[in-house]
Amino acid sequence: MFKSRLALLAVAVLVSPVTLNAADPLTMSGVLESADASDWRHPAQHDLLYLRLQDGVVVFELANDFAPRHIANLRELVRSQYFDGLAIVRSQDNYVVQWGDPDSGTDTARSLGDAAATLAPEFFRDRDGLRFTAVDSDDAYAPEVGFADGFPMASDGERAWLAHCYGMLGVGRANEADSGNSAELYVVIGHAPRHLDRNVTLIGRAINGLDLLSTLPRGDGAMGFYESAGDREPIVSMRFGDQLPANEQLEFDVLRTDTETFRNLVEARRNRMEDWFVDPGGRVGLCNVPLPVRHSQ
Amino acid sequence: MFKSRLALLAVAVLVSPVTLNAADPLTMSGVLESADASDWRHPAQHDLLYLRLQDGVVVFELANDFAPRHIANLRELVRSQYFDGLAIVRSQDNYVVQWGDPDSGTDTARSLGDAAATLAPEFFRDRDGLRFTAVDSDDAYAPEVGFADGFPMASDGERAWLAHCYGMLGVGRANEADSGNSAELYVVIGHAPRHLDRNVTLIGRAINGLDLLSTLPRGDGAMGFYESAGDREPIVSMRFGDQLPANEQLEFDVLRTDTETFRNLVEARRNRMEDWFVDPGGRVGLCNVPLPVRHSQ
Repeated sequence: MFKSRLALLAVAVLVSPVTLNAADPLTMSGVLESADASDWRHPAQHDLLYLRLQDGVVVFELANDFAPRHIANLRELVRSQYFDGLAIVRSQDNYVVQWGDPDSGTDTARSLGDAAATLAPEFFRDRDGLRFTAVDSDDAYAPEVGFADGFPMASDGERAWLAHCYGMLGVGRANEADSGNSAELYVVIGHAPRHLDRNVTLIGRAINGLDLLSTLPRGDGAMGFYESAGDREPIVSMRFGDQLPANEQLEFDVLRTDTETFRNLVEARRNRMEDWFVDPGGRVGLCNVPLPVRHSQ
Repeated sequence: MFKSRLALLAVAVLVSPVTLNAADPLTMSGVLESADASDWRHPAQHDLLYLRLQDGVVVFELANDFAPRHIANLRELVRSQYFDGLAIVRSQDNYVVQWGDPDSGTDTARSLGDAAATLAPEFFRDRDGLRFTAVDSDDAYAPEVGFADGFPMASDGERAWLAHCYGMLGVGRANEADSGNSAELYVVIGHAPRHLDRNVTLIGRAINGLDLLSTLPRGDGAMGFYESAGDREPIVSMRFGDQLPANEQLEFDVLRTDTETFRNLVEARRNRMEDWFVDPGGRVGLCNVPLPVRHSQ
């Protein structure tokens, strides 16, 4: 059947490593086939956030190196089951899906319990101390870009911040910089809104099931907020993996970003050697580098 | 109600132009409010492509300056009602939605009629002769970027090509460069896949109703193809606007990109002066520049 093979983004389940032949053109599938066990890491359940909807679960990995305060506050909110029964409040095309308390800011808002209502922002941190892999790219938004332990990041040489690529998880806030408290979260479902970098605290990224959110009907109100309660997708529960019974935990391998294999993958995306490509390009953008995830074998 | 105001992308219907005060910080809403009638253009129905689904219609504006051969072949296919009753065949998260004949390449494929089966590619054209507005940006994929009559484009100084930003409409092809014939189309619904630039012929962009496609359930097969016929969203019809009865034509104004108003809009996106922003940024990416569209008054 004729099918226009625009590109292969799906990550095949790997069976056994093969040796990458230096004479072969570097492709993503070739790089992944030649990866060995040490090229993958296995995030702890403690660092996986499960957002359960009626039709399935979205799983996020948290970026403890960048937002420890916001993640700690989120842990307290999740421990008290703050999110259970709340809702997806916003879906804006080519932008974000957002969830939390539809009554936030009103008399009937749900209590934050022991969680803090305001938090000093974590918009950036010191670049020093990160396991950083640079990507050579002309970036529209930062002098330097790359990856830190699986998360896209940018830097001005001294400060480092997570980058708003597709699937990144952030903490909504009002106008005051300290008004984000992890009670309202959003995920990027469109072209990377990098102007939000250094303006919002990012805390992780989706590694599974993001299509459950990205395909929600767009909200009918301004900025994609749902006007009617009946249009809002309910949140069944939100939990960290280590709070779940073993039969509800999902096990993932995430490709490490501090390896030769990952650097080869970046180069394979910079120069597209698959037969389909007429022009291999020779360039690559930060948010165009895929971060392969597989179900653990 | 507390709502995290991540950004205002919705374009308000404009009532009457106001004067932009040089002392006011430049914002997108301010720029649009101060625009006058001559800042907008009104695409002819001849250049609007209507993709009708069961739940509504998606409208695309065609880029005649870049892909006249592919657009002419598309006109012939649409004239013969080639697409009516075909289907959306692919929805891949963070990538593309694609439509055409699910039986393409088999014995039961629908005939292309008088349309050509192969076409010389239109991956790029001469930069000369375009009404080009440059955007000062460090672009990951090209030495120079900007807009040509409402379409995002890139250039190496001599050649110009349309850029795969969100909502751009392209012609699927097989491995051979000339195998695209406009019988299989795709639209970008994720982070700009700019590695496809100069590898596929782009022919336009969505200006209305794209959420009907971007929220389709993702396909369960490789690369987001639907495995089962029952999962494919049927195409009711595809028509150019001038083939439709007047009561089915939609009238749009599109912000011109060769004006001072548009250059102000780009600067308003480069430096975000809305109260919400802590860091105005000072940088902007090509595919982060919105291209405002409104229903004609």
